[in-house]
Amino acid sequence: MNIADLRDRILKQERRALARAITLVESAREDHRAQATELLEGLSGAGRQSLRIGLSGTPGVGKSTFIESFGMMLTAQGLKVAVLAVDPSSARSGGSILGDKTRMERLSRDRNAFIRPSPSQTHLGGVARRTREAVALCEAAGFDVILIETVGVGQSETVVAEMSDLFLLLLAPAGGDELQGVKRGIMEMADIILVNKADGALKATAMRTCADYAGALRLLRKRPQDPKGFPKAMTVSALEEDGLSAAWDEMTELMEWRKTEGHWRARRAAQAQFWFHEEVRQGLLARLNQISARTRMQELDAQVAAGAMTPSQAALSMLENLE
Amino acid sequence: MNIADLRDRILKQERRALARAITLVESAREDHRAQATELLEGLSGAGRQSLRIGLSGTPGVGKSTFIESFGMMLTAQGLKVAVLAVDPSSARSGGSILGDKTRMERLSRDRNAFIRPSPSQTHLGGVARRTREAVALCEAAGFDVILIETVGVGQSETVVAEMSDLFLLLLAPAGGDELQGVKRGIMEMADIILVNKADGALKATAMRTCADYAGALRLLRKRPQDPKGFPKAMTVSALEEDGLSAAWDEMTELMEWRKTEGHWRARRAAQAQFWFHEEVRQGLLARLNQISARTRMQELDAQVAAGAMTPSQAALSMLENLE
Repeated sequence: MNIADLRDRILKQERRALARAITLVESAREDHRAQATELLEGLSGAGRQSLRIGLSGTPGVGKSTFIESFGMMLTAQGLKVAVLAVDPSSARSGGSILGDKTRMERLSRDRNAFIRPSPSQTHLGGVARRTREAVALCEAAGFDVILIETVGVGQSETVVAEMSDLFLLLLAPAGGDELQGVKRGIMEMADIILVNKADGALKATAMRTCADYAGALRLLRKRPQDPKGFPKAMTVSALEEDGLSAAWDEMTELMEWRKTEGHWRARRAAQAQFWFHEEVRQGLLARLNQISARTRMQELDAQVAAGAMTPSQAALSMLENLE
Repeated sequence: MNIADLRDRILKQERRALARAITLVESAREDHRAQATELLEGLSGAGRQSLRIGLSGTPGVGKSTFIESFGMMLTAQGLKVAVLAVDPSSARSGGSILGDKTRMERLSRDRNAFIRPSPSQTHLGGVARRTREAVALCEAAGFDVILIETVGVGQSETVVAEMSDLFLLLLAPAGGDELQGVKRGIMEMADIILVNKADGALKATAMRTCADYAGALRLLRKRPQDPKGFPKAMTVSALEEDGLSAAWDEMTELMEWRKTEGHWRARRAAQAQFWFHEEVRQGLLARLNQISARTRMQELDAQVAAGAMTPSQAALSMLENLE
């Protein structure tokens, strides 16, 4: 593969080149990895500074409909929108989420939109790196807004929040006054909670749910990166395309404020450090998967199982031999 | 410290020597660590094969009362009982659980019992190793039964289950027919669920709760290490010392069966391997805490934050320099 050519075509905003480049960064093959690194270095600093929006919502809250309606609204304003997914559970089916494009049919046909399903990786660490690299590629290809969505399995919300400028939590209207079992940690990540399906028979319920979450958000500790009134809860109807423009106004206002106050830059720097540390940790642990290490580990495993060595003795011996 | 002398006194079942040895294994000081290793190697294979019982229960289920009543019943049979705790949250108070001995006042005065609060470690990995070493010391000191208790914060239940021969889950009677939010993963670890407080006004509720859990346990996948009827749910009253003997009978029957069928040995071997792997991982990551590594990490941190290097480039550079 001609990496210089691929680079130029990405900078010319060719979608097929972008898709091909993402396939390249998703590959686990060693030669592909080297090419991917070369490509990313060649593109670094190019393109525009996108707005990275993290979006979490469990199945059933209308996430696909929201992304489609919200994305169409943005492209109608002339913005280029990319949609990426972080979904460790998709690894189970051995590949990308089936129908990721069919569930956002209109948006996938939009020339200013680009939809990419989650890479198939059993390992969230691998998905995280590849998604961050896909974000960099989309930025180089001139996308203005990058939506990174997750269904919120395990640690995936943290992963998405650590690569986003702002984090949206999409929820469904809930009967009664109980909050929908949203974990406190997830609430604390959210910049804006969107209660979807504020339409038809559910409208009143959605408004009550929204008020409940607004109350819950007020109880959270104040964060320095929030202007007055944030984090906030709002109602939207993805189906009727209602409230989306108001939500977008809030997002742009929030980002303006954060950029002016220096929080945006500080957050990106902190995120870069987070991923640096994470890659070092993963890289260290990967040494255990080298063939020589695995062989030694198996030998020691047998000793430990037989009681000939204690776990600590075996660990010491293993660590001494790991370069 | 004279390690050979300490070793001999532990083998003579001197409690003060045992307490001192546990303090030694809990120390993070490098010279203490070397002494601890020497001591543990000197004791390996000595003493008796204890029954290691893991016990989890959230605050309020009557765990202390249960341990006291259950422990007193065992010591009355001539058995020597040690109680250890794995409680990562105790790190918050900077030390051991206040009143660990006062909350089990009778048992702590029993000559055949030994109670040791959780070591103060912010890091569950550290608590895990020290607790495993304390278990080994208690075995060398001739204890027949070792109760390892946890309040079940974070991963502590997994840690305890991975060092126990059998795992008890202590629960309180619950109103209504809803199960008490016990996570499926915890249910799957349990060999016996004990519904406590089956006395007075709560007796009927406890029996209903027990039946609910028995039903839930029947829905779990069958495990090869379970004889017919296990895992099972039973009611006990720690306060009235009722049902404890029946529970003990079930435990001994279960252990007999597992020993005969080879499951006991297989489980201990698998646990040793688990801890071997865990120590290798922790040992590898500890290399990042060496002074030279920390200095290099800080330099790269600054580069990453300034955008002069990508997280991946910095990670690569860091990993190349880590021996």
